[in-house]
Amino acid sequence: MEKIDVGKKILRENDKHAFENIIFLTERKKLCLNMISSPGSGKTTILARTITELKGKVKIGVIEGDIQTDIDAERIRETEAPAVQINTEGACHLSAPQISDALKILPVDELDLIFIENVGNLVCPSAFALGESGKIAVLSVAEGDDKPAKYPAIFAKSKAMLLNKIDLLEGGHVDFDVERAKADARRLNKTLEVFPISARTGEGMAAWCDWLVNSVRETVK
Amino acid sequence: MEKIDVGKKILRENDKHAFENIIFLTERKKLCLNMISSPGSGKTTILARTITELKGKVKIGVIEGDIQTDIDAERIRETEAPAVQINTEGACHLSAPQISDALKILPVDELDLIFIENVGNLVCPSAFALGESGKIAVLSVAEGDDKPAKYPAIFAKSKAMLLNKIDLLEGGHVDFDVERAKADARRLNKTLEVFPISARTGEGMAAWCDWLVNSVRETVK
Repeated sequence: MEKIDVGKKILRENDKHAFENIIFLTERKKLCLNMISSPGSGKTTILARTITELKGKVKIGVIEGDIQTDIDAERIRETEAPAVQINTEGACHLSAPQISDALKILPVDELDLIFIENVGNLVCPSAFALGESGKIAVLSVAEGDDKPAKYPAIFAKSKAMLLNKIDLLEGGHVDFDVERAKADARRLNKTLEVFPISARTGEGMAAWCDWLVNSVRETVK
Repeated sequence: MEKIDVGKKILRENDKHAFENIIFLTERKKLCLNMISSPGSGKTTILARTITELKGKVKIGVIEGDIQTDIDAERIRETEAPAVQINTEGACHLSAPQISDALKILPVDELDLIFIENVGNLVCPSAFALGESGKIAVLSVAEGDDKPAKYPAIFAKSKAMLLNKIDLLEGGHVDFDVERAKADARRLNKTLEVFPISARTGEGMAAWCDWLVNSVRETVK
């Protein structure tokens, strides 16, 4: 009997759809960023603030991945950006066919940048290509500076790492060595961009938004 | 061709080992708790503090699950408790055969309570029985009060929920409605015990430790 490697087969099927999504987005010159993090690192708050700060400069749409609820899509819609909610009904990551479906609903031609907010999970989503232009790892300083060493895959594969909730560092409310986290992540990924931010206070958001504006500019060239 | 449900087959194989672990632990009257949470919610810090506070009262051993590194087992060993590190090499959850192996290494007969610290992941570990007496969900208040609604499985299946890092609530460093999180979790699980704690300051640890002492007492009856 032939041995079937089921893991590889599922990935192959996913990658076929991911490739179609790449073609779809590249033909239209759209930047698409896949945000990955633990639950509660602040992805939705970062997105809402980014959309607001870039209003009039970059047109942003969002694909929201959650196991259940549409809490996150509702929060994005409050910024007036278009948002499509995908409920994975228990699955621990978004897959490329779900993104293909969402891209049919989003008004892609009117957008410059599409964010995918993946299911909160620092492990599984990093193994599934969605057709994105790049991955963005988000790490809250409340989670501890050992996370790049302990969960290396996503930090190795990302274009940028957002170190969120840096307002908690002042006053020593959490123990987090920014330089250690940065060094561990850059050991895995030499060209990783690192943006320390607080989506709550707005600190550091300007550098992140400038990087997005430049990335959009590179995409439409 | 017969359709094979691979997900079910993997779970069946896992459950066979989980059942063996239950027999092994029940025969020896050992309490075994499987701690599940997002990365960085404070599982290891909680365990280290719990071990220290219960020294002389409850003999605790730990099975540490991580994708990579033995940072966590080292932190546990500093408390002088025995700890076995399992590296899953990329896998997003511990599985029952790994626990069977670890139980052969731990000095089980000398212990009252075995903690399993699962891989940091609020989704996948909840689907894999390990042979534990019960699951403990850990949620840091830095992660947001919407997590029981967004990631229901683990809250529905747990004996207790630890709401950690409550020191961040004072001074309003994070927005987290304890009553909302509690209500959402109890909607999924009427008998869920809830312990608001700070493993950093020690607040609330006494109630949690009392509950553990009682649970050990019930197990050896």
